[in-house]
Amino acid sequence: MLALSDAAWEGVAVDYYHGETRTPEWRARVSVMGEVPVLEHVGRKLTQSGAILTFLSQHLGRFGAEDREEELRWLLFDNHKFTSYLATWRWLVSFTPNPDPAVIAFFRARLENAFRVVEAQLAGRDFLLGAKPCIADISMQGYLHFPQEEWPLDMTGFPNITAWIARFRAMPGWQPPYTLLPGARFPKPAAN
Amino acid sequence: MLALSDAAWEGVAVDYYHGETRTPEWRARVSVMGEVPVLEHVGRKLTQSGAILTFLSQHLGRFGAEDREEELRWLLFDNHKFTSYLATWRWLVSFTPNPDPAVIAFFRARLENAFRVVEAQLAGRDFLLGAKPCIADISMQGYLHFPQEEWPLDMTGFPNITAWIARFRAMPGWQPPYTLLPGARFPKPAAN
Repeated sequence: MLALSDAAWEGVAVDYYHGETRTPEWRARVSVMGEVPVLEHVGRKLTQSGAILTFLSQHLGRFGAEDREEELRWLLFDNHKFTSYLATWRWLVSFTPNPDPAVIAFFRARLENAFRVVEAQLAGRDFLLGAKPCIADISMQGYLHFPQEEWPLDMTGFPNITAWIARFRAMPGWQPPYTLLPGARFPKPAAN
Repeated sequence: MLALSDAAWEGVAVDYYHGETRTPEWRARVSVMGEVPVLEHVGRKLTQSGAILTFLSQHLGRFGAEDREEELRWLLFDNHKFTSYLATWRWLVSFTPNPDPAVIAFFRARLENAFRVVEAQLAGRDFLLGAKPCIADISMQGYLHFPQEEWPLDMTGFPNITAWIARFRAMPGWQPPYTLLPGARFPKPAAN
């Protein structure tokens, strides 16, 4: 969102993988939710990516949908079923030592259902709500730009999603996540 | 929300358990997301409970928080981690034939993390954002009013959440879900 909006921003490294965001100190100082991302702006700290995107769309005047209700509906769907399941499944298949196959299969099935919903929504539309991208697109696209070997879903059945990803890659300012946040790549754990 | 707001409404039975909301016809006529709840109002149909609550808070002038950003932040947290995990775990432990124990354990651990966040947030507050309930409270409370044998979480460590549930039960208009929607109770499946 910040890169696509040509905003002035910089990343701040957080030791997420060793639990920095889950410490009592972090929960007291930043957010009881114990999470990243965090947007810091003029002394305020805001968490929850959907709330950050909503704030930025108003603050920057970029990527706000005309239909705010529909935008919220897709932000909520994303947080419940799309990025939520994609992020958990990626974490399990790529960064968890000895993940349980039943849990992987459970999330994969739910993820595929969510992908089918988005694939259908994108039929005849360049972006989720029509001709222009909005923050709901940005919310959903985030994890789709991690290297696909980290989320090895067969995309054969999802040509609309594949084209939608390509549309984002072609947008001015677009950069892949490990270019935007060089320290964010995390190591493949050894199975034990 | 509708009962607490003394709004005029009626429930419409949907055969969710046999997939009515996941048919192509439903997706075309109501929502591509294939879900309930659906709010129908003057010919429009709106899905996603968080979007419905946001609409109703504006339409009815009830339960809207002064801090809309914080309200959205908790609505998103609820959709990602609180009701989302609670609803899935309840479904697995109470209404799924032969659920996988590893999947149950995975959701239970995530659910307990989410409960700890809400327990901490409620310390010194009657409701999530302070002295008054808002739609984020209503969003999170929904599943907490199903009979507790359906979501058998040990609540010993969550006195703030327990008191918060009791505050809702004491609100004018409050009714338990199976009283509001008598047809919504679903049968315990036989293990096979």
